[in-house]
Amino acid sequence: MDKIVNVAIMGIGTVGGGTYEILTKNHDFLLKNQGIDFRVKKVLDKNLERIRSFGIPEEKAASSVDEIAADKDISVVVETMGGVEPAKTFIEKVLLSGKNVVTANKELISKHWPELEAAAKKGGAGLYFEASCVGGVPIIRALEESLQANRINSLVGIINGTTNYILTKMTEEGMSYEAALKEAQQLGYAEFDPTSDVEGYDAAYKLSILSSLAFHTCVPYTCVYREGITKITKTDIKMGSEMGYVIKLLAIGKRTGDGVEVRVHPTFVPKSHPLAGVGGSFNAVFLNGDFVDDLMFYGRGAGARPTGSAIVSDIVYAAKRVSPLYSDFDNSGKADVEISSDYVCKYYVSISVNDATGVLASLSNVFAKNNVSIENLIQKGENGRAAIFFLTHACKESDVRRAVSEIEKYDGTNRVENLIRVLE
Amino acid sequence: MDKIVNVAIMGIGTVGGGTYEILTKNHDFLLKNQGIDFRVKKVLDKNLERIRSFGIPEEKAASSVDEIAADKDISVVVETMGGVEPAKTFIEKVLLSGKNVVTANKELISKHWPELEAAAKKGGAGLYFEASCVGGVPIIRALEESLQANRINSLVGIINGTTNYILTKMTEEGMSYEAALKEAQQLGYAEFDPTSDVEGYDAAYKLSILSSLAFHTCVPYTCVYREGITKITKTDIKMGSEMGYVIKLLAIGKRTGDGVEVRVHPTFVPKSHPLAGVGGSFNAVFLNGDFVDDLMFYGRGAGARPTGSAIVSDIVYAAKRVSPLYSDFDNSGKADVEISSDYVCKYYVSISVNDATGVLASLSNVFAKNNVSIENLIQKGENGRAAIFFLTHACKESDVRRAVSEIEKYDGTNRVENLIRVLE
Repeated sequence: MDKIVNVAIMGIGTVGGGTYEILTKNHDFLLKNQGIDFRVKKVLDKNLERIRSFGIPEEKAASSVDEIAADKDISVVVETMGGVEPAKTFIEKVLLSGKNVVTANKELISKHWPELEAAAKKGGAGLYFEASCVGGVPIIRALEESLQANRINSLVGIINGTTNYILTKMTEEGMSYEAALKEAQQLGYAEFDPTSDVEGYDAAYKLSILSSLAFHTCVPYTCVYREGITKITKTDIKMGSEMGYVIKLLAIGKRTGDGVEVRVHPTFVPKSHPLAGVGGSFNAVFLNGDFVDDLMFYGRGAGARPTGSAIVSDIVYAAKRVSPLYSDFDNSGKADVEISSDYVCKYYVSISVNDATGVLASLSNVFAKNNVSIENLIQKGENGRAAIFFLTHACKESDVRRAVSEIEKYDGTNRVENLIRVLE
Repeated sequence: MDKIVNVAIMGIGTVGGGTYEILTKNHDFLLKNQGIDFRVKKVLDKNLERIRSFGIPEEKAASSVDEIAADKDISVVVETMGGVEPAKTFIEKVLLSGKNVVTANKELISKHWPELEAAAKKGGAGLYFEASCVGGVPIIRALEESLQANRINSLVGIINGTTNYILTKMTEEGMSYEAALKEAQQLGYAEFDPTSDVEGYDAAYKLSILSSLAFHTCVPYTCVYREGITKITKTDIKMGSEMGYVIKLLAIGKRTGDGVEVRVHPTFVPKSHPLAGVGGSFNAVFLNGDFVDDLMFYGRGAGARPTGSAIVSDIVYAAKRVSPLYSDFDNSGKADVEISSDYVCKYYVSISVNDATGVLASLSNVFAKNNVSIENLIQKGENGRAAIFFLTHACKESDVRRAVSEIEKYDGTNRVENLIRVLE
């Protein structure tokens, strides 16, 4: 006997529409292969026109979340409204009524996971959010169902498509940041207000969720060090390339002794690294486990159809589980490990100087005095000014920062233009 | 209350040893995060010395498979003996006794899946084999638990580490096939008798399993077209590179109208394709689904620790499942779809000719007459002989083969040296 599973969708924008499309177009395929007869019974959206635009019969429109919560036939509710409120209130209501919730809402999960999980436990329901991180790339399921044997040592991701598109355009076509951003906005890859993407908030939300799962510990998004891509120049990209690197906005989670470090920042990636080839709007997560060694998951990190694929995967997964899945750590909302901030890596430092005798020697001395040794440097000069690009050996962030602040005060320095971390 | 799960391991070679190591070293980690107290209760191996060499207490040595089958405390049995017999008989015994089986045995699964699944159903047990395909790369779980929403259109993999190592050495260091094979043997990447790897049997076993799962249909390994890497020369690699390609042994599964095509052969991959960068002993599976679009999974396809990671993942997965998982298609052992053999792709054809007037024109005519149009060609001549390397546009395999057999009979032809398919 096939099992009937009634689904409700709250918020019928791009991703909600994609979910509806899959459940409709692949209905018979899912029935045949999963043995489940999925039916979208109710759709909640304040805009009736949007419901119509996806060809959804009007009688499926729900008048309120309470109507969905009260419907005993519905067992899975998809939340694709986005934002914190009213999504949070709505999700809590349906969880408390015992319905499984599938959501793509990274901001909400990263900010309110503990409260949502508490509501899920109280209602005896499950909370699933594969779609919240890296769209169609099944990284959450991999962490939960495929890598259980491993202590994850590190997780490094290109997990924001907008910034990867912009940086790829700057790298491959020599565009300026401003021009690349404008093009991304015209293509719909970037919002009118691009802050959440270009300043790394979106990646920080996702990194907080992924690190919590990977390290089996609570890593609030507020612990994530965050730096955006707005200061990256064509010169940095060109110099990095000469040194063998491509620029990427990376989200990095690492196990460090008793703690973890979590950070989102522009990073030079060696051209030979598998992440270097992840271009355009593609995303990837590269991780290392104590037994599995290196693994990479690559795919589309956004879009109605890939994100819809992740949502429907969660719907099937939820519908087949006998008991719901909760986080395997103390999900209190507070970090329960030490969050390190003194990263150790190579650094690229771009400095414009007055082209005078002894400047290079002085700068080199300042680095040396602060335990920063130089692996490579390029000097370019014109019109009495010069630019020097240093690539350090691996060293402590605190040492580099001390050196840089000394260099800023030095007479021969015009300006420290940029400081970019380098992946090893 | 933590759940105790007693495990038996049959065959304590490299991979069995890796499995024992994970269950021992990460015992407390698994207890804390999965809530399961895994205990290796019995180990079966005819060589007691091997059992000792992994530091396994002698009292855990089982005298026979019957002892394991009769032990009511044991709920999961790992098979890491390899080969068809006695592995098959042993697995059937323990499945019939109701114990879940986790195996890394691709040859056995691809040859006897139906009988093993019948035994599993009869015993009410589960049969899990993530480790049988692509080592630590969780491709089977991804197909079963993450991509349910998708009709998979194609699955293209570098799924044999030995041949990828050999081809990478030939490509990057200009080694001959023979020299690269010898090095792989010295490093333990290739067997003394390398046939199973270099002739593509190993990849065909895996492709049969992966295609069955991806296309929800029975694809016996005997349906897989198979061609090894032994005929690939340094010249092919060099010419391919000039045309923009790298050589890889690919396993390709494709949905084609009502059927599927499944084939393992050396293939030229465009240098810009994500699979092109998968070097050395690394493996990867690139797939396309109707909603998720392109996805790639990359990692270590072999080795005690990565394969052990996949086995322990299956052990945890089996231990947490309430009811076992069976294949979602008629697993009869016979293909239940049409298996296409007239592939459509680009072809590289290398021909040595007598350096006479009109030869190129004649060859071009033969191609044209057989509906094969040429995209690119390189001609190299010396000492009255010439080599011509054709790259065709996408065309039918039957057309190319007809053209080639005509060319072989042509006076101006010295020899058709090679015919290599090209991935688009």
